[in-house]
Amino acid sequence: MLIVQKYGGTSVGSLERIENVARRVARAREEGKDLVVVVSAMSGETNKLIEYAHHFSKNPSRREMDILLSSGERVTAALLAIALQEMGHDAIALTGRQAGIRTDSTHTYARIEEIRTDMIQQRIEEGKIVIVAGFQGINEHGEVTTLGRGGSDLSAVALAGALKADACEIYSDVDGIYTTDPRIEPRAKKLKHISYDEMLELSSLGAKVLQNRSVELAKKMGVTIIARSSFSDDPGTIISEEDESMEAVVVSGIALDKNQARVSLREVADRPGIAAEIFNKLAEEQINVDMIIQNASKDGTTNLGFTVPQSELERAKEAISQGFGGEIGGADYDENICKVSIVGVGMKSHSGIAAKAFSTLAENNINIEMISTSEIKISMVIDEKYGELAVRSLHEAYELDK
Amino acid sequence: MLIVQKYGGTSVGSLERIENVARRVARAREEGKDLVVVVSAMSGETNKLIEYAHHFSKNPSRREMDILLSSGERVTAALLAIALQEMGHDAIALTGRQAGIRTDSTHTYARIEEIRTDMIQQRIEEGKIVIVAGFQGINEHGEVTTLGRGGSDLSAVALAGALKADACEIYSDVDGIYTTDPRIEPRAKKLKHISYDEMLELSSLGAKVLQNRSVELAKKMGVTIIARSSFSDDPGTIISEEDESMEAVVVSGIALDKNQARVSLREVADRPGIAAEIFNKLAEEQINVDMIIQNASKDGTTNLGFTVPQSELERAKEAISQGFGGEIGGADYDENICKVSIVGVGMKSHSGIAAKAFSTLAENNINIEMISTSEIKISMVIDEKYGELAVRSLHEAYELDK
Repeated sequence: MLIVQKYGGTSVGSLERIENVARRVARAREEGKDLVVVVSAMSGETNKLIEYAHHFSKNPSRREMDILLSSGERVTAALLAIALQEMGHDAIALTGRQAGIRTDSTHTYARIEEIRTDMIQQRIEEGKIVIVAGFQGINEHGEVTTLGRGGSDLSAVALAGALKADACEIYSDVDGIYTTDPRIEPRAKKLKHISYDEMLELSSLGAKVLQNRSVELAKKMGVTIIARSSFSDDPGTIISEEDESMEAVVVSGIALDKNQARVSLREVADRPGIAAEIFNKLAEEQINVDMIIQNASKDGTTNLGFTVPQSELERAKEAISQGFGGEIGGADYDENICKVSIVGVGMKSHSGIAAKAFSTLAENNINIEMISTSEIKISMVIDEKYGELAVRSLHEAYELDK
Repeated sequence: MLIVQKYGGTSVGSLERIENVARRVARAREEGKDLVVVVSAMSGETNKLIEYAHHFSKNPSRREMDILLSSGERVTAALLAIALQEMGHDAIALTGRQAGIRTDSTHTYARIEEIRTDMIQQRIEEGKIVIVAGFQGINEHGEVTTLGRGGSDLSAVALAGALKADACEIYSDVDGIYTTDPRIEPRAKKLKHISYDEMLELSSLGAKVLQNRSVELAKKMGVTIIARSSFSDDPGTIISEEDESMEAVVVSGIALDKNQARVSLREVADRPGIAAEIFNKLAEEQINVDMIIQNASKDGTTNLGFTVPQSELERAKEAISQGFGGEIGGADYDENICKVSIVGVGMKSHSGIAAKAFSTLAENNINIEMISTSEIKISMVIDEKYGELAVRSLHEAYELDK
């Protein structure tokens, strides 16, 4: 059985913690597993290096940033290999290049294009525990690249896919995915199992555990992820393709996103293509639009509402005021909103899920300002101050604490 | 004009100091020079990483140490390139691998076998300032290697040789080579010029500036080294092949080595081959023997004296007591000695240099316990407590303060 394990920055955040990781890896080895272990930089290291670079430049060259930032994972990989060797295990540290991770040339946010697995395969066949510096690769010219935030997860999932590993265990300081944020609802329950799509929709719940790019890649490559804590023996949460048992569960989790802002455009000229122009303009400015709602009104104009991340609101205002002065009657902006989402693959085959959400919020006198739905998700924009109350009420209404 | 510059750990020991280095590099650039800049890790970084490794193992795998230790120079190289770019210069950071530095496979103490200069040449032709992470290379299998202590100097000299650079400037916190240690003799004078051979013999004077391996390599490749300080504009000391002007100077410098211990073997059986056996045994135990003196005595035995580094004395004692019990009458060991050396290429063509040394010490009532001479050096072992006095007296006798 071949397992890819990945340990995040907190799990390797000190020499003692690296030793703890070495003991976990050794234990898995002693259970007879073949192991490829991907490691992040020690927590704080990457931020320290970024600060160093920003001492010199607000906008440092991304090529040089990659040489800079790839050093932290190399340190952890070497130290973990040394720790395992000292425990009597045959371990070897590989850099991203040596692990055969080939990427495109988008420095600091490269995409993995190919994994040349022969080197790792050979080491596994020699009986070695292979430790890989995560987050990094090289492009076709031999330039060092890094994969962006959460990149070590990507390294691990891609390696698991390429090596056809039985599972990819992602270790952090959180022991799995919960029905909602336990800081909001202490009765939140850890999920045993969740589908890729649910995980993607619940990204805010899993953000500390693993990021969307990794889940998307796992889905594409059919890699089973197990999200676990390196500080406990909890079995964690399995993230995989949905199966029948999952569909029996109507709602898997409830997510709260407080980082959204709402844009309402009033009296937009009701001519074909205006919406496309507006959203193209926003896309050009690299503003991520989330929910979109349009209502035609009677006077030949239309109202257009959408949400953007709060941090992008100023840029959105500018883009709109620059581009569409004559064709938009007025614009309102509201940062004091939040988005509550109910997610579950079971929704596909159950009716009444949305109705229960609306009535639950109504019972609590919470006004719903925007609604959007997908096959497995219902999202509602409400006043920011009601966010936690909405999550707790919905958590109870769908009996997620049971 | 192509100059290779190398900045040591102290010169890049903080972000402010890296900025200072960037300004120096920029200034050289603005003078119209083509530049390849080799950097060490920020001071303290390499030792920190070694401590980390020793947390896990007393004897960590050297292959993994190389992945670990090579990270520090990469950080400095990237930061210096970013700093230069911010100043408007076209700079690029290269790892040892990208700089084409190919070594043998002796991890943590690799030898440079070849430098593939095409990548650097191309970057220079593009008008770029090339920043190279020192101390590191790769072997024929693509494994990361490091070059041992002082390895960044070796990287710089080897690059200067391979690129046929006009000079290799080695920057540290010392502004050159002095006639003797200024802490012993405040009137010590900085040398404008010194030959490779003198530098090698005066290694204790230059130990903080550059190590013997680099001087040997520079001699072999005909690279002119300029030892300078990154904290001043002093022109430093040129280290090159000796020329006529050098030979006019009889004595270049006086070195003091207090880390030696003397071994005196009495009544050694006077049979052929006994000395060879003793020194072979010491070589097997990797004990570095320096001065050797043998005097036959009248009774068919001989006295054999030699010096070893103090730190190796215990091992030397053991080797001798184990191997030669029956054939050695007795052994004395003395750690309270020191070695004073007078060095100068001019000695070759001047007589009376040694006589002046002996009489100078005699005038100060300093007894000489051992003497050895080479073409350009006279070394004398004396009581340790007279070391500084001997240096000062000789410094004055040869008028080095003039």
